[in-house]
Amino acid sequence: MTDVRIYVTYKESVFDPQGDTIKQAIHALGHDEVKDVKVGKFFDVTLDPSKKDIETAVKEVAEELLVNFNLETYRYEIMEEA
Amino acid sequence: MTDVRIYVTYKESVFDPQGDTIKQAIHALGHDEVKDVKVGKFFDVTLDPSKKDIETAVKEVAEELLVNFNLETYRYEIMEEA
Repeated sequence: MTDVRIYVTYKESVFDPQGDTIKQAIHALGHDEVKDVKVGKFFDVTLDPSKKDIETAVKEVAEELLVNFNLETYRYEIMEEA
Repeated sequence: MTDVRIYVTYKESVFDPQGDTIKQAIHALGHDEVKDVKVGKFFDVTLDPSKKDIETAVKEVAEELLVNFNLETYRYEIMEEA
């Protein structure tokens, strides 16, 4: 088995309301050392490489379900052989 | 400035409903090469190290706002000097 981590983030051009809200909350707590906050999500996916090669599997799963390409972009890294 | 990425994940003992739901959806799309899915989030935080040292700032922000320690755990990595 192979563990892959797929990172999904907003495109640079897209405003991140959650990140902005969190930044304001952090400043309200008095943390002015914090200059910016962006939020992202990741998916830890365990794959069986004998059934499909990793790159194809990740591309298909990302495109079919995990990523909204109007707003988001993704990249992935192979974590380890599980 | 320093960019830090704070990863927040469910504790091992906590059931991940979102990951489970996504796994079922992926299987419904015919991707049986996918064995497991876990979901996490991350915060890209830009910090001014001259105002507070990185480790303290991350610890405070994580404990005061970003992490629900009943369910979640976190770790962070310094991405780069912004």
